[in-house]
Amino acid sequence: MCNNEATAMVFGAIQKPFSSKKVKFPELKRQEVLIEISYSTICTSDLHTFYGRRNAHTPSVLGHEVIGKVVLLAEGGVNDYFGNSLKIGDLVTWSVYAHDHNGKMAKKGFPQKSEDLFKYGHEEMTQNNALNGGFATHCHLRAGTDIFKIPKNINAKEATPLNCTHATIAGAIRLAGDVTGKNVLVIGAGMLGLSACAMSKYASANNVTSMDIDPDRMALAKKFGADQALDASLKTEEIISKAKEWDGIDLVIDTSGSPDAMEKGLEILNIGGISIWVGAVYSQRDFSFNAEQIVRRLLTIKGLHNYKPEDLAFAIEFLEISKNQYPFESLVAEEYPLEKLDEAFEIANTSGKYRIGVKP
Amino acid sequence: MCNNEATAMVFGAIQKPFSSKKVKFPELKRQEVLIEISYSTICTSDLHTFYGRRNAHTPSVLGHEVIGKVVLLAEGGVNDYFGNSLKIGDLVTWSVYAHDHNGKMAKKGFPQKSEDLFKYGHEEMTQNNALNGGFATHCHLRAGTDIFKIPKNINAKEATPLNCTHATIAGAIRLAGDVTGKNVLVIGAGMLGLSACAMSKYASANNVTSMDIDPDRMALAKKFGADQALDASLKTEEIISKAKEWDGIDLVIDTSGSPDAMEKGLEILNIGGISIWVGAVYSQRDFSFNAEQIVRRLLTIKGLHNYKPEDLAFAIEFLEISKNQYPFESLVAEEYPLEKLDEAFEIANTSGKYRIGVKP
Repeated sequence: MCNNEATAMVFGAIQKPFSSKKVKFPELKRQEVLIEISYSTICTSDLHTFYGRRNAHTPSVLGHEVIGKVVLLAEGGVNDYFGNSLKIGDLVTWSVYAHDHNGKMAKKGFPQKSEDLFKYGHEEMTQNNALNGGFATHCHLRAGTDIFKIPKNINAKEATPLNCTHATIAGAIRLAGDVTGKNVLVIGAGMLGLSACAMSKYASANNVTSMDIDPDRMALAKKFGADQALDASLKTEEIISKAKEWDGIDLVIDTSGSPDAMEKGLEILNIGGISIWVGAVYSQRDFSFNAEQIVRRLLTIKGLHNYKPEDLAFAIEFLEISKNQYPFESLVAEEYPLEKLDEAFEIANTSGKYRIGVKP
Repeated sequence: MCNNEATAMVFGAIQKPFSSKKVKFPELKRQEVLIEISYSTICTSDLHTFYGRRNAHTPSVLGHEVIGKVVLLAEGGVNDYFGNSLKIGDLVTWSVYAHDHNGKMAKKGFPQKSEDLFKYGHEEMTQNNALNGGFATHCHLRAGTDIFKIPKNINAKEATPLNCTHATIAGAIRLAGDVTGKNVLVIGAGMLGLSACAMSKYASANNVTSMDIDPDRMALAKKFGADQALDASLKTEEIISKAKEWDGIDLVIDTSGSPDAMEKGLEILNIGGISIWVGAVYSQRDFSFNAEQIVRRLLTIKGLHNYKPEDLAFAIEFLEISKNQYPFESLVAEEYPLEKLDEAFEIANTSGKYRIGVKP
């Protein structure tokens, strides 16, 4: 490989093998950074795209759970999120999107819905705009990307899901307000759900319950901060009755996106309870609920899609401080070299493992 | 009438004439106050009770939108909400409920759902517990009632709906968070809706839209701070298209309780929008909505029932400062003496007037 050339695994069509492509390093414009990728993990949404369960641009470079080292910086230098200058060799993660920090949506408090949003791992690959995703040797960070140095005590397998899974859950915790002393129900014990159990504890929850249909996942949740796990197929009244043992549920974080589960979550909530929905990002039936219940029981529902850069900051702090309590590293079950990306996707889709790692 | 006797108009059964009853003044226990009622107004929920559209205790004294003068104070004195001592002759309003300020629900931030809640105008009348409502010459305030002196510049017709209508809307504004610069849609132009238009402006909303099915009410809303009024029967796309003229809707306050209207309100909201529901306090079909829309558009739904004492404080401040801008006094269309309460209810139920006043 020549010194100023990257390799990208190109997604061209649904379920077709990735094609390896050589790409010249871009000329960096102001505030841009070239990253040498250290590690990527395959997120469920990568699988949705590859297996055609959602629309996507092609050709493209998938992968957005990714970390890497700074190898080139634009003239004038580039600062990280906290305003400290980045240096060659810094190991970093970054917000899953670049956006105009002075744009209308950013000023309204919704940067993740900015008009000019550029989302890594989701954009069309063009001649001048090629290194946009995680399944490549390099990634080209645009101006408006919030970049964060990775603390020394966090290893690659732990750090890679930071800018998707953990940052999204940090956003959910932000929307929940003060979690101190609250009893939390986390619906779904996938990657988001495990993160939600652990981060609720970090945010000083009193009691955390995981709910899932899979007994193995329920058992695993207890290693990630859940005080108990409940079978999602239990009747609502049974769950309410069990939850009385620890004074009920004040906060629900739904990572499942299942209308049945979201409805159940609302039924279960204590008076004044809050339900944060992050899982419903796919086509589904409408949910149904009685508005009089929402009013008389003072309930709140909040939807969250993606996150704000400050959430990624919180996620990093969470992982840095509490990583030794939870076996996050073990969730990256297997590791493949970049050139074996087809195999990695196959395993990720069929094995039911939380994450498969990809290493250039 | 003897000096230590009150008269109460007793609600005994649905649509049966009220019966006038003499009641001896109670012996005041610590922190209790006896009020000589100056004015009451008939709230829509009084009508729901009287006409059997909702369950209620009987016998009882209805009426909870009420003001009056302090005529007796318990030994040791009683303080108002702000900690100032009450004096004989003070004209006051009070929270619609008494509650234990140190109770579990109060500490959780939901005093209006306290275990020991005592709600004026809603309790059964008993030998020792008789003067509980507004349609009487006197009202017996229990310990745990938050009492507020009425500012001198607010007259009786303006002040009486404070502790129900305006305080509820103040609660909605609190739940909405910072309203500054936001575009608000108020669904329903009843008493709650008009208050919501005016209070949104007081809370520095950029633009306020009233939506109702009644052209007269739509016109009236413009006198209460609405920049424009929309016909609720317009199609959702038409409303969205119109609202584009002023950059869409950031906040919906639903006072209608209609599932159709609440669903429409969610469709109309801008990204990151908030919908506060206060109207859905009656039996109705379940509402239905797509959870993926809630998530991707970062929407929030919050239900509110009753209010917190601090909301009544805010409502009083609002009325004191902005009363000259809005014809609230004109909403009390007619006035009846207490002994003609049957007639007052008949007119309130059939005339479509906002409020009918009752004066002992």
